[in-house]
Amino acid sequence: MPAVKRISFLSDYGLADHFVGVCHGVIAQIAPQAEVIDIAHELPPCAIVPAALTLRSAIPYMPLGITLAVVDPSVGTERGAVAIETADRRLFVGPDNGLLMPAAELCGGVVEAVDIRSSPAKREPTSATFHGRDIFAPVAARLSAGSALGELGEPFNPDNLHRLELFNARVERDELLTYVLHVDRFGNVQLDAGPDLLKQLAITSGDQLELVVGKRSFPATFATTFAEVMAGELLLFTDSAQLLSIAVNRDSAARWLTLGTGTQLKIRTE
Amino acid sequence: MPAVKRISFLSDYGLADHFVGVCHGVIAQIAPQAEVIDIAHELPPCAIVPAALTLRSAIPYMPLGITLAVVDPSVGTERGAVAIETADRRLFVGPDNGLLMPAAELCGGVVEAVDIRSSPAKREPTSATFHGRDIFAPVAARLSAGSALGELGEPFNPDNLHRLELFNARVERDELLTYVLHVDRFGNVQLDAGPDLLKQLAITSGDQLELVVGKRSFPATFATTFAEVMAGELLLFTDSAQLLSIAVNRDSAARWLTLGTGTQLKIRTE
Amino acid sequence: MPAVKRISFLSDYGLADHFVGVCHGVIAQIAPQAEVIDIAHELPPCAIVPAALTLRSAIPYMPLGITLAVVDPSVGTERGAVAIETADRRLFVGPDNGLLMPAAELCGGVVEAVDIRSSPAKREPTSATFHGRDIFAPVAARLSAGSALGELGEPFNPDNLHRLELFNARVERDELLTYVLHVDRFGNVQLDAGPDLLKQLAITSGDQLELVVGKRSFPATFATTFAEVMAGELLLFTDSAQLLSIAVNRDSAARWLTLGTGTQLKIRTE
Repeated sequence: MPAVKRISFLSDYGLADHFVGVCHGVIAQIAPQAEVIDIAHELPPCAIVPAALTLRSAIPYMPLGITLAVVDPSVGTERGAVAIETADRRLFVGPDNGLLMPAAELCGGVVEAVDIRSSPAKREPTSATFHGRDIFAPVAARLSAGSALGELGEPFNPDNLHRLELFNARVERDELLTYVLHVDRFGNVQLDAGPDLLKQLAITSGDQLELVVGKRSFPATFATTFAEVMAGELLLFTDSAQLLSIAVNRDSAARWLTLGTGTQLKIRTE
Repeated sequence: MPAVKRISFLSDYGLADHFVGVCHGVIAQIAPQAEVIDIAHELPPCAIVPAALTLRSAIPYMPLGITLAVVDPSVGTERGAVAIETADRRLFVGPDNGLLMPAAELCGGVVEAVDIRSSPAKREPTSATFHGRDIFAPVAARLSAGSALGELGEPFNPDNLHRLELFNARVERDELLTYVLHVDRFGNVQLDAGPDLLKQLAITSGDQLELVVGKRSFPATFATTFAEVMAGELLLFTDSAQLLSIAVNRDSAARWLTLGTGTQLKIRTE
Repeated sequence: MPAVKRISFLSDYGLADHFVGVCHGVIAQIAPQAEVIDIAHELPPCAIVPAALTLRSAIPYMPLGITLAVVDPSVGTERGAVAIETADRRLFVGPDNGLLMPAAELCGGVVEAVDIRSSPAKREPTSATFHGRDIFAPVAARLSAGSALGELGEPFNPDNLHRLELFNARVERDELLTYVLHVDRFGNVQLDAGPDLLKQLAITSGDQLELVVGKRSFPATFATTFAEVMAGELLLFTDSAQLLSIAVNRDSAARWLTLGTGTQLKIRTE
């Protein structure tokens, strides 16, 4: 008897309704011993890019097993539905809209994929609007209970999986041009650039920088910890996802700089 | 030794406070092996009708076992507190204010009921305001651990259980008069009518309809999937709870039509 | 083999991001059999006092085991990080900023403490901003899997643990001077005073009181249950945490009286 594998679950269903609970129920009906870890469900509705980035940030901290991810603005259209296996032997289930791919690539890339739109695991009748309940959760539950990918869908060439353009940051002359990926509840602002791009500009820890947002300019320190700047001062640091983030010690950088997802910034030596 | 039964749990306690966590803790103290599925906790505070409908929508997807449901605006008054068994052998625990009944009726109706206001499972001292912690969760936990209904309360005639009036939709002349039950986070608007009422009006899939809200009127398509209308167009469809819902492909129908719970609509052929 | 102990988990990480899910994942990686109860995660960001009070309210209802608590505005500075054991054999893990102490004192006080800033359980590289993931959750998981406190950090004198001033309520002449600790989602207002202080004023159940907020004054009843006053009337009662709370039967006391955390009130006989 194969071991029951843990399921980690991310969606934009929110917690105000019963959608997340219903997916948990469906999993428990099919695979009573499966344990589910909720990664996040209050992601912005129908926004694939931030959800894909959140999944990529979270996946290294999830136990090996199955990841069920549903952010699915095109549910009810001809968009694909897939289950995939990655080189490090993780399984992912969700819509074929790019959501799964940044995480899957971090896990070594896709080695096998199946199209699950007509999966034998699918609930009948299948609703037009709630494939989390009717397709994705049942497939994840069956994988958790030991089914092989090949039993749950039609083989599908991984090269044909839908992929997203996520990172647009680049060095231009003497500055880093970058975009806001995410603002967390503490007001910390994550950028679409890693510390390697600062290295190209010969910027090192402790350097004084200028952050330019439109016509406004703000002084900041490239620091390792919040404690290196005074309360109320700006810092740029490498965050827990290995991306550059902007913070204000003891305050909200997003509010200070009026930043939101997609805002363009320039970063240069002061 | 009877198997430990799973508990599904719905409330309006919200997730900002520790009330839900405390109920989980109380269950774990009494029945350490019980597993709990959270159906939803961010339901509108003290609103019995939407919670009863959410429970009814969710129950077919929950594993057999116990359902603990607490939306209890009259806590601390003489309102009843009950544990019931349904024809399909599910158990429900909660206040006797109608909350449990739509789900229980979907499960074949109530075959046994006990009054648990003075249950031996009750925590002492019992607070006047937090019966979830002091009465309902302890009773659910004891049922999960194998206690029989009769050990946990006084027999109670199921005919005397409080019931709600939920569905007021009706066909009048050549139109369907219906009310908004629920708006989800995507802005989809659920009505208190099933597709059978449209059938009475000889409306079939693909028909062009008129949705009338007060003095405003909107064209819509009676469709099976979102893909049948263009982005930005209105559709009426049978949702995943087998009720009629209004949506705008890729936008919020609630915002477009300014609809909220209780709003009256008329639906007729264009 | 020591039994796997349950972990109860409180934080201010919120549920909009993946931070809570990532801590669950880290625990599952280290201690696959550990079960986690979420006490609350939507607490006000960076506010130690309300979180400490919430933890103190919840702890009697949690099964014996480990409590992981992270509200950590000084993460990345020299603030301490500790794991402690209390007289009733509970374990707590979190920052040494006072958060754990009201709960720990309710559990008989601290009998052993270790400094876990350089714990062998720590994830490397340790981020400067997410010690929940990199230090606190790993230590909690190892405790759950059976490690002893002494294996996870350096001995630390419990007398040196950081403590908070929480309760400022006092009787002055013929009135109780008290402060709002917490407003829940129903608008009930919890004060920093227990019923013992009313007893000093010879106020007993059923007495008519005057609540004074700034220059405004409101009549209220000192009651045991909501049912003792009419809908729309104010009552003062002993809440489920054994503290005084103000409520309006069927409405929001916080909105009626315009109260928030920290507001000063005076209570006296009418």
